[in-house]
Amino acid sequence: MLYIIGLGLADEKDISVKGLDIVRKAERVYLEAYTAILLVDKEQLEAYYGRPVILADREMVESQSDEILKDAETKDVAFLVVGDPFSATTHTDLALRCRQNDPPIPTRTLPNASILTAVGATGLSLYNFGQTVSMVFFTDSWKPSSFYDRIAENASLGLHTLVLLDIKVKEPDLQAMARGKIIYEKPRFMTVAQCASQMLEVEDERQQGVCGKEALAVGVARLGSEDQQIVAGTLEELSTADLGRPLHSLVLCGKKMHEMEWEFVREFAVDQGTFDQVWKSVYGAQK
Amino acid sequence: MLYIIGLGLADEKDISVKGLDIVRKAERVYLEAYTAILLVDKEQLEAYYGRPVILADREMVESQSDEILKDAETKDVAFLVVGDPFSATTHTDLALRCRQNDPPIPTRTLPNASILTAVGATGLSLYNFGQTVSMVFFTDSWKPSSFYDRIAENASLGLHTLVLLDIKVKEPDLQAMARGKIIYEKPRFMTVAQCASQMLEVEDERQQGVCGKEALAVGVARLGSEDQQIVAGTLEELSTADLGRPLHSLVLCGKKMHEMEWEFVREFAVDQGTFDQVWKSVYGAQK
Repeated sequence: MLYIIGLGLADEKDISVKGLDIVRKAERVYLEAYTAILLVDKEQLEAYYGRPVILADREMVESQSDEILKDAETKDVAFLVVGDPFSATTHTDLALRCRQNDPPIPTRTLPNASILTAVGATGLSLYNFGQTVSMVFFTDSWKPSSFYDRIAENASLGLHTLVLLDIKVKEPDLQAMARGKIIYEKPRFMTVAQCASQMLEVEDERQQGVCGKEALAVGVARLGSEDQQIVAGTLEELSTADLGRPLHSLVLCGKKMHEMEWEFVREFAVDQGTFDQVWKSVYGAQK
Repeated sequence: MLYIIGLGLADEKDISVKGLDIVRKAERVYLEAYTAILLVDKEQLEAYYGRPVILADREMVESQSDEILKDAETKDVAFLVVGDPFSATTHTDLALRCRQNDPPIPTRTLPNASILTAVGATGLSLYNFGQTVSMVFFTDSWKPSSFYDRIAENASLGLHTLVLLDIKVKEPDLQAMARGKIIYEKPRFMTVAQCASQMLEVEDERQQGVCGKEALAVGVARLGSEDQQIVAGTLEELSTADLGRPLHSLVLCGKKMHEMEWEFVREFAVDQGTFDQVWKSVYGAQK
C-alpha cells in the first residue's frame, strides 16, 4: 500500500495520530521536499518518527517513481507531503501511476491542514475565496503574469484570491552547469514583500486596477506555528513589510469583504487608520 | 488559553499529535456538534482522549459562550471542531469574543484537514475551484436558491463549485413546541441525491443552464475515512445515487475541467460511457 500522508504546516507534531502510526510501521518513508517545507528539518522528523526519512526531490518523484513504488503491492510505503496531499499535484501523479501499475498498487491518502484553509486565520471567510493562484520569481526576461487574469476574474465577482508564493529548492546553477559542474543554488523562498512588489509591477503594465497600490491585502507567514505572523495593509504597505522566516503567502482582498471580516482583519493592519479609510471608501462602499 | 482544535474528518485518530497532547491536559474539553459530525460517537472520543467531552450545541456556543470561556484567562480550555476550525464561522465568533474579553483571552488554533481540500480526492484540481456554497433542505414553502447565483458566477469562469450539504441536529420540533413541549427532531443529513435533485429543481425554474440534467458532478461521502465513496456522473444520474452514511458533499464540475482531471474522475463514473461522452462534447470541447 502507498500511503500519501499530509504532515500539516508547522512541525513534526502536526501529523495525525493515525498518520504517525503508519509512518512508524512503514517499510520506507519518503518526504516530498520541493513544493513546500516544514519549519523543522529532516533530522527532527527522523528523531520524532523514529524512522529514517528519504528526501524525494522533484527529479526523484517525476523520473524515479518506480523506486518509490517498489514492492508497494505487498509492503507499506509512506510518502509524506507538507500540508495537505491534495493541495499538491504530486498526489494526483503518484496516485495515477499506482492505478496504472500492473498489478495496481492500492493507495490511501491521509488529509491534513492546508494553507488553503489555514489562511482562515486572517479572519477572511473561506466562502469568499475564488480560485487560488501561484506567483513565481520574476527574472529580468521572464515575468509570467497569467496570475493577473485569474485575480481579475476573482475580483470581478468581489472574491478574495489566495496567492501561493514560489519556492526554489535544489535548483541547478545554470552557469555552473555550462562549465560541466552540477551545483545547486541556495534555496529561496518568496516573501510577502516580493510578491506585493511583483503584483504592483504587473499592475503598472496592465493598468486594469486589479492590484494597485491601494488594494487591500493580507500577508501571512508560518501559519499554524506558534510564531505565525499576519500583516494587513495596502499592497504598497506590504511591499516593504518584513514577516521574517518562510513560508509566506498573500491574500488579495475582494470587494465583497464583509464587515465582520474587516473587523477581524483590521487588528492585523500595518496602519489601522489607512486600512479603515481604504476599506470604508472602496470596500465597505460596495454594499 | 482557549485552544480551538481541528479534529479532521473521520475518527478519533485524525487529531494531530500536538492537538491530542493539549486535549489530554486541558481543564475542560468541548466538542462543537452542530455544523459537522465525525463518523464516531462522543463516547469513542472520550475513551481515546481519556477525558470527558462536553457537547456544545448551537445554543451553547451562541448564547452561553461565557460558560465555555470561564477562567480561560488562566486555565486551558480545548474547543474541538470537526474538520478544520477555520472552515466554520464558529471559530471567528469565539476568537472575536476572546479578543473583546476583559482581560483578553489568549487563543490558539490548530488547523486540520477540511472538506474544502479533502475534496481533492476526486482528482479535481483545487486550483480550479471557485467560491464554496451551502445547500439547505428545501421545504414546501422555503426553497432558497442564492446558491444558484454563486454557481453561475463560478461557471462563468469555468470553475468547479464545492457544495456543502445541510445537516440538522437538535432541531426543535415546532409542532411539539406549539403544544408546550421541547422535543428535538431526529438528526438529518442531506445526501448527494437530495442535493442533485434540489439543483435540478432550481434549474427548472431559472433555466440558465447552470445545473441541468447533463451537468457533470461528483458526489463524495465520508471523505478521509476507510470507506469513503466517490461517485461521478451527470446531475440526473447523481439524483438517484446512493452513497450510504453521512457526511456527503457534491462538486459541480466547471467547464475548464482539464484532461488530467477528467482522466482521474472518470474512474468514479456511474456510467463511464455517458461520462466520457458528455465530457467530450461539452467540457473537453471548451479548449
